[in-house]
Amino acid sequence: MSGTAYAAVDWGTSSFRLWLMDRAGGVIAERRSDEGMMAAARAGFAAVLQSNLDALDVAPDLPVVICGMAGARQGWVEAGYIDTPARLTAVLDRAVMVPGQARDIRILPGIAQRDPNAPDVMRGEETQLLGALGLDAADEATVCMPGTHSKWVDVRGGTVRRFATFMTGELFGTIARDTILSHAMAGAEDAVDHEAFKAAVTAAFEAPALAANLLFRVRSGQLLFGGSASAARETISGTMIGLELAAGLAGQASASAITLIASGRLQVLYRLALETRGVRINAVDAVRRGLAMAASTIWKR
Amino acid sequence: MSGTAYAAVDWGTSSFRLWLMDRAGGVIAERRSDEGMMAAARAGFAAVLQSNLDALDVAPDLPVVICGMAGARQGWVEAGYIDTPARLTAVLDRAVMVPGQARDIRILPGIAQRDPNAPDVMRGEETQLLGALGLDAADEATVCMPGTHSKWVDVRGGTVRRFATFMTGELFGTIARDTILSHAMAGAEDAVDHEAFKAAVTAAFEAPALAANLLFRVRSGQLLFGGSASAARETISGTMIGLELAAGLAGQASASAITLIASGRLQVLYRLALETRGVRINAVDAVRRGLAMAASTIWKR
Repeated sequence: MSGTAYAAVDWGTSSFRLWLMDRAGGVIAERRSDEGMMAAARAGFAAVLQSNLDALDVAPDLPVVICGMAGARQGWVEAGYIDTPARLTAVLDRAVMVPGQARDIRILPGIAQRDPNAPDVMRGEETQLLGALGLDAADEATVCMPGTHSKWVDVRGGTVRRFATFMTGELFGTIARDTILSHAMAGAEDAVDHEAFKAAVTAAFEAPALAANLLFRVRSGQLLFGGSASAARETISGTMIGLELAAGLAGQASASAITLIASGRLQVLYRLALETRGVRINAVDAVRRGLAMAASTIWKR
Repeated sequence: MSGTAYAAVDWGTSSFRLWLMDRAGGVIAERRSDEGMMAAARAGFAAVLQSNLDALDVAPDLPVVICGMAGARQGWVEAGYIDTPARLTAVLDRAVMVPGQARDIRILPGIAQRDPNAPDVMRGEETQLLGALGLDAADEATVCMPGTHSKWVDVRGGTVRRFATFMTGELFGTIARDTILSHAMAGAEDAVDHEAFKAAVTAAFEAPALAANLLFRVRSGQLLFGGSASAARETISGTMIGLELAAGLAGQASASAITLIASGRLQVLYRLALETRGVRINAVDAVRRGLAMAASTIWKR
């Protein structure tokens, strides 16, 4: 396609997103699929990428910039980690070129916190941080990035100082699917039960030690008093998010703002949850913009 | 069999245990299987019980006393609940007879806490409490009953005042089986890694809000620093048990004793966990003795 400057790819564990971008950072075309790292490890990373590019009929020399799990040890080419304290610009400087390819393909590294008392890793979120905060981020920011593995990140002067990953989304998923509580939320409607959700956030935030009991109350409450499947789902969700907030907001000044990088249903839920704590929120969209910044650094385009 | 006075059955969600008992409360024979409520709901409760009794060649009029999920709404015959504050002797007085059977079969009720702010239910554990504490339990006791759904029970003067259920065991199971952490603990050996377990108990006890982060550290710690599968498993187990203890021991005088009703691996783990908190432990074995007490009350034998 004429005007296409490069392709940007966010390659997660279970999802694949690709955008064709112009020189100004505008989106020309987009593709999404479930060809994440798990699927691509079987089908071949090069084949998955090529088939998606073929579907968009791009030039054979169109460069590609990739963030996420494609750079993991079990991914395509290991892109390593920048260690904390990690300047976000170092992520751009340390992109790894995929060898033996007809086109120029770069994979961005992740960030590692090599603290034996709080080891942690991210892959993909560093690119979202770049997109959300910009290269020149001079201010302090506490960033909340909800998801399967939620990240809370302390950024100062363009540097990731500390971060912590919470298995909130994955725990919610397995509790909802694989435990006795799956019966309590069977048939839940799409609409969010705001009141049940906020009450659960508050309960878990105020007494995080009770988390495994608050979850069981979903079942015993339904047995003894009834209640809807949607309320049950939101109570489980609110319990897990309230537990995360109790740690993420610890030590935060009450008047401070949280930068929330999320979209869709997760943005709705985390907004509601943070509002119950009286936290100000800056919500931003991020990963594509981060990849565009990487492209303009790597290829000056 | 001569000398057999009755059969006692602990009928759980996924397990079935039956003992033939003599008049003195001694065990003549025992059977265990996975014909719990889930399996028996398909095969038929009467058929499952009869086949187990047939295998032991007992008299057709031998009476049977049952506790557990056979008395649930989705069980054999609903045996209802005694509400808190619940005298343990009331459990014996309110046993429900199964109608239309050739032999005398009684199912013991559970206990319900009909508090809209902390709804809770137990079925089977009330019989363990009877067995552990005895009918005349005059003292105060805080009882910890580890399991799929751990119970912490406040008993005074033979009466269950309050209790709370924690989904500790079920959460551990699904985290170990169904999340990314399953890879971290693949191939773990049977032996308990005491140090990893105790460190995880302490970390979760002291910062319960971090639970979902402490779990992710199992993965990131292994990625960045290595570590054994057994240590990973015990860290997950210790995190979940430490979280439970943070709630269960809240408000306990430090010198007070906990009555621990557990056996096997769970008794080992909960002993270790409680010892990290300096708690004194009275460990007891319980359910069969509770059923024997029920039999002697119901049939005066």
